[in-house]
Amino acid sequence: MEQLLANVFPCQVHWGDCDPAGIIFYPTYFRWMDAASWALFEKVGYDPKRMREEHRAMPLVSADCQFLAPARHGDRCEVRSRIARFGGKSFVVAHDIVRADGTELAKGSETRVWGVYESGPGSPMKGETITDALKAFFRER
Amino acid sequence: MEQLLANVFPCQVHWGDCDPAGIIFYPTYFRWMDAASWALFEKVGYDPKRMREEHRAMPLVSADCQFLAPARHGDRCEVRSRIARFGGKSFVVAHDIVRADGTELAKGSETRVWGVYESGPGSPMKGETITDALKAFFRER
Amino acid sequence: MEQLLANVFPCQVHWGDCDPAGIIFYPTYFRWMDAASWALFEKVGYDPKRMREEHRAMPLVSADCQFLAPARHGDRCEVRSRIARFGGKSFVVAHDIVRADGTELAKGSETRVWGVYESGPGSPMKGETITDALKAFFRER
Amino acid sequence: MEQLLANVFPCQVHWGDCDPAGIIFYPTYFRWMDAASWALFEKVGYDPKRMREEHRAMPLVSADCQFLAPARHGDRCEVRSRIARFGGKSFVVAHDIVRADGTELAKGSETRVWGVYESGPGSPMKGETITDALKAFFRER
Repeated sequence: MEQLLANVFPCQVHWGDCDPAGIIFYPTYFRWMDAASWALFEKVGYDPKRMREEHRAMPLVSADCQFLAPARHGDRCEVRSRIARFGGKSFVVAHDIVRADGTELAKGSETRVWGVYESGPGSPMKGETITDALKAFFRER
Repeated sequence: MEQLLANVFPCQVHWGDCDPAGIIFYPTYFRWMDAASWALFEKVGYDPKRMREEHRAMPLVSADCQFLAPARHGDRCEVRSRIARFGGKSFVVAHDIVRADGTELAKGSETRVWGVYESGPGSPMKGETITDALKAFFRER
Repeated sequence: MEQLLANVFPCQVHWGDCDPAGIIFYPTYFRWMDAASWALFEKVGYDPKRMREEHRAMPLVSADCQFLAPARHGDRCEVRSRIARFGGKSFVVAHDIVRADGTELAKGSETRVWGVYESGPGSPMKGETITDALKAFFRER
Repeated sequence: MEQLLANVFPCQVHWGDCDPAGIIFYPTYFRWMDAASWALFEKVGYDPKRMREEHRAMPLVSADCQFLAPARHGDRCEVRSRIARFGGKSFVVAHDIVRADGTELAKGSETRVWGVYESGPGSPMKGETITDALKAFFRER
């Protein structure tokens, strides 16, 4: 089985990312996963500027996360992301969130549509078939 | 089968909750679900002040959400929350996010621990057994 | 001097709005002020849908806030907003953030441009002259 | 006049940091400034772990920001922070937010108290006199 390209998105737990329990407020992980998915696509050539110019976005179908260990203010982390599966017009991104000391903090996934705005940002989006050419970008080289 | 108490948490999609596609940025739903879970517990007597005084919190084990229809700036919504299941020291909250026009926008769930800080906020938390008395609060009266 | 219309935007301090010190994370106040400014304009007929259809937005020139008393999880509050001054193409919104017990938590202001997108959302914005008709909407009736 | 130490806090405009106008949602700048202030103190030895152990925090008195140029999704930026002034128990941090192409996006300041929790996180804070030893850490070496 071929190996798919992974991307590493560095991040850090900031003061405002934490709650009164002194640990990360969990929606922060989803904010990170979203940014990490954009970074994964940037790695294969679909940077924000190009996505904008081609009127593309990646709306969500679903998202989930398991929280394995609590993170605290100041923790340096990375989100390791890879395409877990390609569907016809959708795809699944798997994310592992790991602290600098090697502790896995959380693991999650997002199912997204490869979308195009019908008429520019702000207009409805429709899914576009994911071509073999696009898939090929994610193969480890 | 007995019916469990539901809580309705009203909310609205604000300008800053939306992304450049003009629709809600998905971690917003998780922020809402978190607030809705606290509101559900407030309804049965565990308001934030009491939770604080008793050194309680509700750390997450996992969370997931399916996104069914896009929400836009200004949409008035509500999160309908109920306990879906009680475990020994954990519980599952199910949430339906519905727009004022009746459209279901998203549905999700959170698995949480009924936690107590070992020595006040900021210290580690441990799970506490969920008593029948606590469960009884969530039965529809 | 004529009295200008005020708007009251209700809000609450949620768990995730607070930081490890157990008090509100201050950018939350700016999120509230932004939403309160949109609510003020909705009150005079410029609701989000109309703003969208007329390709309008209200980009910021500056913002400031003084923090007068700490807010905690669960605090019910309101943002009282009014136009403090109209310029040619810009305006100042003054906000008072008050807790349900009457305590003033914060007071801030935003200077904004009355903006129109040159060609739809995502395109550059330019300021538009604020007409007397628009100003009249904000006079107390 | 002596030169004060500056810190550079790198950051990037993520998809979820932007609003339907396609530009940065302004409270994001305050989130960055907060994180940049913590990074400035980390640089002189007050890292999050130490701050936690010594029961310290830096509650805000006021904050302000001028927005000079719009930032868009993907923009790589840095927050350049320095102590602008020391008071008895408070201090002012000045921040310049600059994009990788050299464009100054925003400039702001925060007035903060050098605070100690009376009895651990979650308890009230009181200001502590800023010693000459602390001030000395911020002198450029």
